[in-house]
Amino acid sequence: MQTNKQWLLVSRPKGEPEIGNFKLVETAVPEIGDREVLVRNHYMSLDPYMRGRMDDKKSYTAPQALDQVMQGGTVGEVVASKNAGYLVGAKVVGAFGWQLFGRSDGTGLRKVDTAKVPLSAYLGVVGMPGVTAWYGLNGIIEPKAGETVVVSAASGAVGATVGQLAKLKGCRVVGVAGGAQKCKAVVEEFGFDACVDYKAGNLDSDLMAATPSGIDGYFENVGGAVLDAVLARMNAFGRIAVCGLISGYNGAPIPVNNFRSVLSNRLKIQGFIVSEHLEFWPTALEELATLVGSGKMKYRETVAQGIEAAPEAFIGLLKGRNFGKQVVKLV
Amino acid sequence: MQTNKQWLLVSRPKGEPEIGNFKLVETAVPEIGDREVLVRNHYMSLDPYMRGRMDDKKSYTAPQALDQVMQGGTVGEVVASKNAGYLVGAKVVGAFGWQLFGRSDGTGLRKVDTAKVPLSAYLGVVGMPGVTAWYGLNGIIEPKAGETVVVSAASGAVGATVGQLAKLKGCRVVGVAGGAQKCKAVVEEFGFDACVDYKAGNLDSDLMAATPSGIDGYFENVGGAVLDAVLARMNAFGRIAVCGLISGYNGAPIPVNNFRSVLSNRLKIQGFIVSEHLEFWPTALEELATLVGSGKMKYRETVAQGIEAAPEAFIGLLKGRNFGKQVVKLV
Repeated sequence: MQTNKQWLLVSRPKGEPEIGNFKLVETAVPEIGDREVLVRNHYMSLDPYMRGRMDDKKSYTAPQALDQVMQGGTVGEVVASKNAGYLVGAKVVGAFGWQLFGRSDGTGLRKVDTAKVPLSAYLGVVGMPGVTAWYGLNGIIEPKAGETVVVSAASGAVGATVGQLAKLKGCRVVGVAGGAQKCKAVVEEFGFDACVDYKAGNLDSDLMAATPSGIDGYFENVGGAVLDAVLARMNAFGRIAVCGLISGYNGAPIPVNNFRSVLSNRLKIQGFIVSEHLEFWPTALEELATLVGSGKMKYRETVAQGIEAAPEAFIGLLKGRNFGKQVVKLV
Repeated sequence: MQTNKQWLLVSRPKGEPEIGNFKLVETAVPEIGDREVLVRNHYMSLDPYMRGRMDDKKSYTAPQALDQVMQGGTVGEVVASKNAGYLVGAKVVGAFGWQLFGRSDGTGLRKVDTAKVPLSAYLGVVGMPGVTAWYGLNGIIEPKAGETVVVSAASGAVGATVGQLAKLKGCRVVGVAGGAQKCKAVVEEFGFDACVDYKAGNLDSDLMAATPSGIDGYFENVGGAVLDAVLARMNAFGRIAVCGLISGYNGAPIPVNNFRSVLSNRLKIQGFIVSEHLEFWPTALEELATLVGSGKMKYRETVAQGIEAAPEAFIGLLKGRNFGKQVVKLV
């Protein structure tokens, strides 16, 4: 008889999460009722935003509840169905969290076509991270051809997509990433014009060299020293989309020293959460699926094997050990 | 024979300006040519932005040149004219800087009506500071009735106007000012709902008490600790108009610690310079003149006597010694 496996959050991390904050439990595979479907998850998503939800404080969503299954996006296959809209065998995107099986009446499910786009990509470049990139770039930065756009965490699922979309718009695109290997891929695989390795010790001067005309748009995923370096290079009327501040997720807030650039350069800085802009999802997903299907949009994944590996992979994600979208393969 | 008096900037301040950075010189009153007018300035304006221009670094305008007359707004009277558009006796707003006389072919001059609005007010509430308040509030914060709007430097020329305009829109309006006396006036004279004295030592808790429903809009004039306290109280989708960061003008940048609120509350922060939004000036000035003329808009001035007093008054302005718009009376 099959069992379900689930990761629960059993305690809130102080600073960096530890394995002991999570607990793996085995439960019965859920029985489905009228109009419900049972989904066997093939991949689950690990994302930086999950760290924020582990804290019990005011944020844009309710905190992750203790002793409950860790929430998150999943892709999988319908393995039992009492809902005519979802036949057995259908591939679906859902939000069943860190577990092997999920049950739904269809709410929150979306059928996807895996003919040209691999299933796992619906957790990344053709999923929430991809739409995040699309919205931050098109909805906030609004880049014009010839402008310079900088992206932090450039080798990540969001960052790599931002950069490629900006290139398609005719921008000069500069990534910021940690380590020579990531920077190499950002330029050679994802086609950025340049990439600054923030771990190389010359962030300010390297960024200056990579942005000879200054910076018009910045897609912010990390905060901290990178944000300060970028603020010092912003051009008048620059736009900054704040998508994440991963450098501060685990500890004390990291001060911003160059805030004065907001005034001297009349910057617009805007934070956003992609789930609050659902009206853009269909357009964005269609564009991204087309680009991936035609090979014009590249992406990378880091795949952890088996649900048991999820907490360690998540901890590694927060430390930048992943390369591209971090998923966990469940089958 | 009349002479002109002019204050020149002769050296760039390191940190706080000192009297020795300026030099008073006497020169001949300019002769006017064809189509020109001679204006005897009655008041000159002192504004925080002037400190920024005294530094020789990249900013939104060219720095104040050394050994040249300090730039700035003026109001005065036409005392000689070869231009039919400006008769002798006409009252005009100009930008002749720190001197007694100015010559112009009409460029940069604007005739004003002093029947209901005193001449000096055209340097303040019905001038650049007033339009600054109007644009930051209406163009960036866009407050809705019932929202809470906070204004720093609330007793200043800009801040007092922001608060009164926001009250007219049906907002709860909270000022932040330095000292019990200024706070008293902010509430009693300018009609704010509350005012927090940042010098009283309980900034965070006092601001919390004054903003029980959080903060939806913030008009930023000062930066530093006030900005951090406000960021911690912002509501989702709050808007911050950055007009000035006077707390950092004289020294090292003051770090912003609560930047994470930009993400967790999906804030929009936008810096602006009112001179880049000239299309709004006529509408704003007409509205402000009407409000002042009808007594619905209050304002205060601190008047230094005589051009000799200008540098000392300017230094005091940067230290918050003024109360309302700082001007220098020249006649």
